Parts: sequence; C-alpha cells; structure tokens
Amino acid sequence: MPNAARISPLAPKSYPEMPPIEGVRLAVGAAGIRYAGRSDVMLALFDEATQVAGVFTKSKCASAPVDWCRARLAGVIAIRNGSRRRDPTARALLVNSGNANAFTGKTGKEAVKFSAKLAAAATGAPERQIFLASTGVIGEPLDASKFDGLLEKLAQEARPDAWLEAARAIMTTDTYPKLATRTALVGGVEVRVSGIAKGAGMIAPDMATMLSFVFTDAAIASPALQSLLSKSARGSFNSITVDGDTSTSDTLLLFATGAAARRGAPQIDKANDRRLTDFRRALDALLLDLAHQVVKDGEGARKFVEITVDGAKTPKAAKRIALSIANSPLVKTAIAGEDANWGRIVMAVGKAGEAADRDKLAIWFGDIRVAHKGQRDPAYDEAQVSQLMRRDAIAVRVDLGLAKGAATVWTCDLTKDYVAINGDYRS
Amino acid sequence: MPNAARISPLAPKSYPEMPPIEGVRLAVGAAGIRYAGRSDVMLALFDEATQVAGVFTKSKCASAPVDWCRARLAGVIAIRNGSRRRDPTARALLVNSGNANAFTGKTGKEAVKFSAKLAAAATGAPERQIFLASTGVIGEPLDASKFDGLLEKLAQEARPDAWLEAARAIMTTDTYPKLATRTALVGGVEVRVSGIAKGAGMIAPDMATMLSFVFTDAAIASPALQSLLSKSARGSFNSITVDGDTSTSDTLLLFATGAAARRGAPQIDKANDRRLTDFRRALDALLLDLAHQVVKDGEGARKFVEITVDGAKTPKAAKRIALSIANSPLVKTAIAGEDANWGRIVMAVGKAGEAADRDKLAIWFGDIRVAHKGQRDPAYDEAQVSQLMRRDAIAVRVDLGLAKGAATVWTCDLTKDYVAINGDYRS
Repeated sequence: MPNAARISPLAPKSYPEMPPIEGVRLAVGAAGIRYAGRSDVMLALFDEATQVAGVFTKSKCASAPVDWCRARLAGVIAIRNGSRRRDPTARALLVNSGNANAFTGKTGKEAVKFSAKLAAAATGAPERQIFLASTGVIGEPLDASKFDGLLEKLAQEARPDAWLEAARAIMTTDTYPKLATRTALVGGVEVRVSGIAKGAGMIAPDMATMLSFVFTDAAIASPALQSLLSKSARGSFNSITVDGDTSTSDTLLLFATGAAARRGAPQIDKANDRRLTDFRRALDALLLDLAHQVVKDGEGARKFVEITVDGAKTPKAAKRIALSIANSPLVKTAIAGEDANWGRIVMAVGKAGEAADRDKLAIWFGDIRVAHKGQRDPAYDEAQVSQLMRRDAIAVRVDLGLAKGAATVWTCDLTKDYVAINGDYRS
Repeated sequence: MPNAARISPLAPKSYPEMPPIEGVRLAVGAAGIRYAGRSDVMLALFDEATQVAGVFTKSKCASAPVDWCRARLAGVIAIRNGSRRRDPTARALLVNSGNANAFTGKTGKEAVKFSAKLAAAATGAPERQIFLASTGVIGEPLDASKFDGLLEKLAQEARPDAWLEAARAIMTTDTYPKLATRTALVGGVEVRVSGIAKGAGMIAPDMATMLSFVFTDAAIASPALQSLLSKSARGSFNSITVDGDTSTSDTLLLFATGAAARRGAPQIDKANDRRLTDFRRALDALLLDLAHQVVKDGEGARKFVEITVDGAKTPKAAKRIALSIANSPLVKTAIAGEDANWGRIVMAVGKAGEAADRDKLAIWFGDIRVAHKGQRDPAYDEAQVSQLMRRDAIAVRVDLGLAKGAATVWTCDLTKDYVAINGDYRS
C-alpha cells in the first residue's frame, strides 16, 4: 500500500530527467483494482518489431502473468534447442498494481488471457506481442474486466514523456517512484536506455525486485538482448535482498525498439558483438541504480547496506556468504541499532555452509577493521566505529583469506517499521 | 541479557518437578563474567564411567568450546572408522553464560584449555572427561581465570536437586528457565531422563538451540547414546527455528550415568536394542518439550507456530519447504499481525526450491482450509479465521498434493520486540 505520508529516509533527493525513448509511448490510468484515488494501470506501446527479453522469479509458484510472459518469450528458447527461429517481439506492455494475480489458479489464467485480449484490441497488436505484469495482493482473483474500455483510452493518450506517472502507477508499498536513465554509444551513435522499477518487500534474489521495465532505442535482436539482460541482472537485481523472501511475480523486461537505427545505429544480432561494450556498461549501471533504489525503499529501511565478501573459494561461495550476512535478521537488527556487531557477521559467515576458516577471517565496517585472524582487532576503536554506524549507508567487508572469490550484495536494515508494515498489510 | 521484567507470554505456567538423576550433581555460581547479581556458571558432576553423546552447530565458525567437545567425543567417530575403541566418558560439565568464547582465536583455545584444567583440578577428573559450553557475546575474550577458586567451591557444593538454579545459570536473553523430565522403562526398570536448555535468538537448525544438557541414569554405552541423540535431535532441536540464524555455539549433550544398573536396569550397548523402545520415546518427548520451550521464548515471540507440510516428494523436501515458511519474515510478521495471509505461505512454498504445483496446493490455518487447487477456498470465512489467528498457538498446514513426504517444524512470530531486543543487545 503506498504510504505517501512516510517517504523512505533513503529516497533520492530528486528524480532524474527522463528524455523520451524513440519508439516508446506510455500512459497510465485508474482501473480501481484496489486503491482509491490513484493510478494503478500502466500501458506502454512500442514500435513494430520491438525486441524483448525477460528475467523472472525462480519461484515454483510463479504468478499467471509470469507464466504468460515466459510463454511469449519462448521463441528465444526454441532457438537454443535448434527449433524454428521465431524471435519474440513486443508491441505493448500492460502492468497493474493492487493485485498480483498470483495463486489464482484457472481464474488467474483466464484473467491473463482476457487482459491480453483487451490490450490487443486496444492497441491493434496480436496477443503474442502483449506483455503483462501484475503486483499487489496474492490469492485474490484479478477482475480484468476493469481494464475494458480503459485500455483504448490509454492507447490513445500514450505519450513519450509519461515516465514519472508510469513509475508511480506500478507502486505498491513503495514510498517513492523509481526511475533511471543512461546513454551509451553503439557504433558511434548515442542510444538511450531508461527504466522504472517497483518493489519494497518480498525482495530477494532471484529475482530481487518485483517489477522492473527497461526500454532502449538501440537495435539489438531479442536473443542478444536476452543474453545481455540475464548477465546484467546477476550483478544488480539478483544481488539485492530486503528480507530474503521471493515474490511469485518478479519480472524484469527489457524492450529494444531499434529506433536508433534510423539515426545510423548498427543492428546488433550477437551479444558478444564488440560494439555492445558501452551499451553493456550503461545497462549494468542502469540496473544497479534501479536495484539500489529498490533496496533503499525496503520496507522500514533506514540504512542502505553494502556487503562485500572476498577471499572466498569461488565467486559463487562469496555471493552465498554475502547473502547469508545480508539476510540474517540478527545482522540486520544490529545495523538498525547502529551496533557494529561483528560477532553476528561471523555467525552469518559460519551458517552459510561455504568454506570459512575462523582464524583467517577479517571484517571491516567502512574502512575500520574490527576483526582479524580469528579475533577482535586490538586497534579497533569502538567510538570511531559507533560514529560510522550512524551514517545512512554502511559498508561491510569480509575477507575470508582463502582464495580470490568475491561478490557484493546490497540490503537494508531490519527495523520495527518492517514488522509494522508487514504485520498489517491486509488489515 | 536476561529480562526478568518481561517474561514471554508463551512461558509455561509452572516449572516441572525435577527429581534427582542418580549419578548427577549440580552447582551454580557467579563468576562475574558479564552479568551482575546473578549466577553465570553451572558445574555438573557425574559418576565414574558416565557415557556421553553430543550434537553441535553446523556453523563453519564453531566456537572454541564446541571444538573442544567434538574432540572429546572423537572416540565414537574412531570406532566407525574401525580404529581403536575408546568410548568417550564424562566426569564433569562446565557451562558459563555471558560470553560465548566464539571467534576469539588463539585466546579462545587457551581459555578453553585453561577452563578444562581448572575443572579437572576441582573435580579430580582427567581433562578428557571435562565437557565445556559457553554462551553469550561473540568475539570478546573469555577470562577463564574467573573460574579459578570458584570451581572447587562448586564441586563441594554440588547436589542432586539444583535443576532450576542450573537452568537459570545458563540463560542469556531467555525470559524463563527451561526444564523437562520424563521416565521410561528399560528392561522393566524405570529410568529417568531430564534436561535443561537455553536459547532465545540465533535459533535455527542445525542446531536449533544454543545449549541443552540432558541427563539419564540409564546404562547406555556412548556409541548407542550418540545414535539415539542424533536421531532424536532431528525431529526436535533441528526442527525449530526462531530467526533462521545459527549460533556458533549450539551444543546438545546427553550424559548417561548408568546408575540405574544398580537397580537392575540392563546395560545397553547397541542403539537398535529393542529394550530402548520406551527410552527412545521418552527422549524424543523430552527433547521436543525443551525445543518447544526454546521457541516459545523466541526473542519477542507472542505466538507459537506449528508448520506441517505434507504431500511433498520426500520428507526432506517437506522439511525444506516447512523451514522456508517458518523462516519467512513476511509469514512471521503476518502471524504477528494476526493475519491469515496464505498468499505469503504460497510465496514461501514457491521460494523453497522444491517441487510444488500451484494448482495442487491446499493450505489450512488450524482446521480451516483457506486455499485449495490453486486458489482461495470459496468456503473460507474470513471472520472465523480471524478469530483463530488471535490464539497463542497457530497451526499451519500445507498439502502439496504431489506425494507422501511430510515434516513438521515449529517457530514463533516476528514482532517489533524482536527488533528492539536485537537492535540494542550490546548497548
């Protein structure tokens, strides 16, 4: 539930200016799905032949819209299996907040089909080019008939500059809209990549955000786009956690209109094309920016926490240990209490199940080493650390001293507000 | 830190009467390790040839006392490897609260050696028959010299009826002492098994409690005792969770004095001896009783939650799903808010990574089925469920509808008090 009265203390001071992405138009409306007096539907329209890629929740109980999007993207998978090449393309994206259409069984599947049918009718695109996402309460049937009539209106109203409205329409317990934009050079031509995101609780890899939609005018074919997106998600949305809980609805979609080709940008078909270097950098930075915004709006969050683990046997082991620290309620409550409780960090390292040698461990808060070689650092000054713990952003670093595996993840603290927000979400 | 002012609302109304266990004497004292005005040391003395078994934390950064106990028990492992048979025996158990002697490196190892030396001198037993456990703050050196002088006094004072004092001396953030006792017939002779436990946060399998010590006068050889204990821990201490965090110090020790043999109880050498049937039942019941007491004293707990998963592919899959539900902050905060939010149960099932079919799932709160076949149960009455959610004890059942794997785990809700308790533990 949006809580305009209380905005996260970690919210950005201002929203970025979001120039249009050629080939993308946006519109929002109020379907009255759950919230009163606010928009809860977002429709994005794309130029013909817009390429598309997606990364979704790994939940075994994915929502009906996630199933729908996966099926629409299946063309990419078919190529890998050597079947007929039929890359997915997108003409519209319909997103609603207030109801996740998850665990709604047959009714949910029908709601998805009906939504796609309505969106297809409103936009003139075939159903297979309609992408869908829903976020909000789980287990309640979504009344898709509420979209009826509204989508035609949105399709007519859609305009290239409705970014902030779009980011607001997809919010649930978010306290601020999340937007980011970057530019990159592809074959010497400037292209733009912009995105919006939402997510405040139930945030954990994989996926780490509930919903994020990214758009670019670069001309990149769907299979290459998929490869770029999957890789970029690993170090961003799949490296953040609020509470270790994984939504049934997590969806990250990337749409490439290809409009920059008209300005001379090259058409790129392979992910390993060298001309993508700068685009990859921009995409990575954009997703990380959005992912950090999601963490900073973690339910009840007062502190943004970066956890880096190095010296692990492998990067995978480092990430597992980093997530064990990031998800530990004892670590998170200690940080909320501005307590540099490195004993709890040791505990979280120990429980991760990866190789660790107590007597080789070193731990830093910021640049202050609090522990090394299996014990408290004699030089560690409690007052200095206390000062540091009062900051909004806390960096924790653990060196396992075993090998070279490293990983960084981001999380927030666990406060009484988290409990309050989630203890009466439905009441 | 003990909080006598606030006792868990789930605390037992009274403590059980604890008759002596022949061959066991107990004493407590105040070494001033951390707390003022309370006992923080417990010494248990055992008859000669007392048999012993243990189950410990799976943390990769186990505390120095855990390392010590494992080494003392190593005789059992040696048998399995076919080496020389030298079963472990115990003459004394020394436990302190206030300092866990964990992540204290070399100093910690030395403190353990010194503690064992002092206990050996005070009791006249060899060091290899001394068992040790410590609980409290991690990472601070334990000053074992504080035991000097005190242990002689305790060894002299030890008496068979100091159960409640012992249970109190090992408390940290516990709000009440945990004790339980049972009897069993072994070869027609009544034997007794009694135990104490402590643990309030950082409670998760494996192990689920920080410390528990169990004593019996039955005559059971260490290897058989180990087998009984490992199995019994699986369905009790290793099936509870408060916050998913695993202590570096978790220790469960079972001591069998064999004194019942003097009353005609048979000497049992093998765990599969049929004469152990009733003892096994009593041990299972005792450990489950103590484990439930630990959960009911979970930091900030207001509700005791039993989670049963059946219809899973295997018992292991069922347990993993049950723990995923039990550890989900979103499920736990919903229960704290008395909200029968089965959508979050679905989420937790989905994220467990085990096979699950949304359209076959059924979920009950108490005996009210709230969801089945992938959607909300049409017969589900919100008012009736709300009534049920107000109770102290909540039972959640999930039927996956896939096969016959089943498991039950126990947890508590996640309240603002948990955050308060852990946000200023050190301050």
